[in-house]
Amino acid sequence: MVSSETNSAAGRPCSAPGVVISVDAMGGDRGPAAVVAGITASAAKNPDIRFIVHGPRAELEQLIARRSGLAARCDIRDAAGVVTMDDKPSQVLRKGEGTSMWSAVESVRLGEATAAVSCGNTGALMALSMMRLRKLPGVNRPAIACLWPSRNPQGFNVMLDCGADIRADAQDLVTFALMGTSYARNGLGLARPRVGLLNVGTEDHKGRPEMKQAHELMPATAEAANFDYVGFVEGGDLPSARVDVIVTDGFTGNVALKTGEGTAKLVGDFLRDAFANSIMSKFAALLAMSSLKRLQKRIDPRRVNGGVFLGLNGTVVKSHGSADSTGISAAIKLAFRLAESGFQDRLAARVAQTAALGAADAPDDNDKNEIEGTG
Amino acid sequence: MVSSETNSAAGRPCSAPGVVISVDAMGGDRGPAAVVAGITASAAKNPDIRFIVHGPRAELEQLIARRSGLAARCDIRDAAGVVTMDDKPSQVLRKGEGTSMWSAVESVRLGEATAAVSCGNTGALMALSMMRLRKLPGVNRPAIACLWPSRNPQGFNVMLDCGADIRADAQDLVTFALMGTSYARNGLGLARPRVGLLNVGTEDHKGRPEMKQAHELMPATAEAANFDYVGFVEGGDLPSARVDVIVTDGFTGNVALKTGEGTAKLVGDFLRDAFANSIMSKFAALLAMSSLKRLQKRIDPRRVNGGVFLGLNGTVVKSHGSADSTGISAAIKLAFRLAESGFQDRLAARVAQTAALGAADAPDDNDKNEIEGTG
Repeated sequence: MVSSETNSAAGRPCSAPGVVISVDAMGGDRGPAAVVAGITASAAKNPDIRFIVHGPRAELEQLIARRSGLAARCDIRDAAGVVTMDDKPSQVLRKGEGTSMWSAVESVRLGEATAAVSCGNTGALMALSMMRLRKLPGVNRPAIACLWPSRNPQGFNVMLDCGADIRADAQDLVTFALMGTSYARNGLGLARPRVGLLNVGTEDHKGRPEMKQAHELMPATAEAANFDYVGFVEGGDLPSARVDVIVTDGFTGNVALKTGEGTAKLVGDFLRDAFANSIMSKFAALLAMSSLKRLQKRIDPRRVNGGVFLGLNGTVVKSHGSADSTGISAAIKLAFRLAESGFQDRLAARVAQTAALGAADAPDDNDKNEIEGTG
Repeated sequence: MVSSETNSAAGRPCSAPGVVISVDAMGGDRGPAAVVAGITASAAKNPDIRFIVHGPRAELEQLIARRSGLAARCDIRDAAGVVTMDDKPSQVLRKGEGTSMWSAVESVRLGEATAAVSCGNTGALMALSMMRLRKLPGVNRPAIACLWPSRNPQGFNVMLDCGADIRADAQDLVTFALMGTSYARNGLGLARPRVGLLNVGTEDHKGRPEMKQAHELMPATAEAANFDYVGFVEGGDLPSARVDVIVTDGFTGNVALKTGEGTAKLVGDFLRDAFANSIMSKFAALLAMSSLKRLQKRIDPRRVNGGVFLGLNGTVVKSHGSADSTGISAAIKLAFRLAESGFQDRLAARVAQTAALGAADAPDDNDKNEIEGTG
């Protein structure tokens, strides 16, 4: 077990400045070697990141020792247990102490690290994070935010909830908008994000009751929290340039996310088939190699790897279970960017402020720009 | 107004055998010229289709007269009114008599045509179809089924509901499975379709309460109605080869459909950008032209154009509002195929039979194969 010291400097592997990311080395489909490879790639790209790595000490020491200079930037926390993809969240809450996932979240709770990254079981990671980090004041349901390749200049849109919870009422959807705009400001650098509510049509009378109610609440929230509300958007708008943050419940968001990934993969496979079809097309593929690689990079799900848990006392990034070193490195980069920007404190302040405004029912325009503005 | 004669031969433009399709010429984004062009293409491909075309007589006569031989296969029904994309369904129900959409549905109700095709306002078409054609016995909520490009040999999977209604309880989801399998048998020629329930994970404990309840009801229904139930599937399975029919509520289905279309379009646009990037890649695109065209055809949404309304006393095919002649011709082909197969009667018998079985709570295996089997 880690120290129970709550001083944020406690347990740091060295006294150099920089951001500390807590990494769960276990639980991914490709094992700890892929995770250490991802850490190595991130370390090479950014000298300001240091790591606390959680898993079986002997195995991790061996993997880390093989990478030149990495040992000095990693502190290993021995954790023998592993949360598997089949473990139920309730089991992990009861018996998960001693697992690498529990230990990785604990480092954030204790302030040793600013953010945690894990490619383990999503449900278990969310349940553990909720139990150990607790929800922020003003948040009823935490959410998972994911990035969606888009036509916007920033290259990505934010969608939430991608599946932290399958339910959401109107007030939850409004809170998702607040959390999503904080993420878009700090993760994507957008000064004034545009928010849309995902629905089956753009007309006011469409959709489920909670959608219509959230639609009515949104303009006042947008005014108080300094974002633009563009109204209802549809599934086809997820990659569109008319919106930056798409708000939906976790059931619909999860289906949309996996549908988008599945469709992109289908088109990619069909494209490969098409180029393998004849000698002529194989030759064409060779000529177009660099263009095709650029395309692949643009829609590569590994580049947008990392669902961020929003609404907790601490930042947790969930990487794909099947992530390779490129994917894990992308998740670490996202955690680093959010940690560096002070995202966690800004989001907490934003939600608390707006919750207070909502309670008082009297928005105060004077201080609405003080927090979080990047412009 | 059309004749109120209910004899199915009434009003037929000629006495030759064949299938009569009722076509709403108005309400699409490209106007009646695109619809008549689509009719022309369908007529050329299949000598067994005849048409009843609904819209302003003078305009339609002129458009049809320009196409060689088409006038002899078309009966025009004069309808001056047009349902626009902005009309609310409730308005159309009250004041829609005299519109081409109303008239097109009426031809099916009167038995003059076996199926109707319209590219007008979806909500209005569904409301009109429900009011005029009425729901089949045993159906609580009608559904819209759409085709999804897939890795299966038949090239497409069926998904429903794509947005006829935004709610569905467990029993509705079971009825969707029955209607979807009828459609897969008659529209895609699958003897024993495999059905999956769209959820956020494949484990039994996941999802909303109505999903879990439907999941429990499904095995007995599958046994009685002669299909395979594969369990929960995820968004990524929509194009997969492990399932033929995907069942979901209309809210989730509509978001998934539009998300899939939007993603395919995004990847296609990025692909075009990639090939336009350099002289070399432009040359490669030229060489790969036929392969790229094959790919485009494989994922062309116009080829799968046509959402079919299921659960009514009559077949109605909704074409995309933006459909061009290729898209409209695809929707007519689908309507023809379903009409020719006797789909409507088979679906009605299947739902009534299973509803009766459910009421008696005693499935009778002896007659389960009598209806609809294609094998």
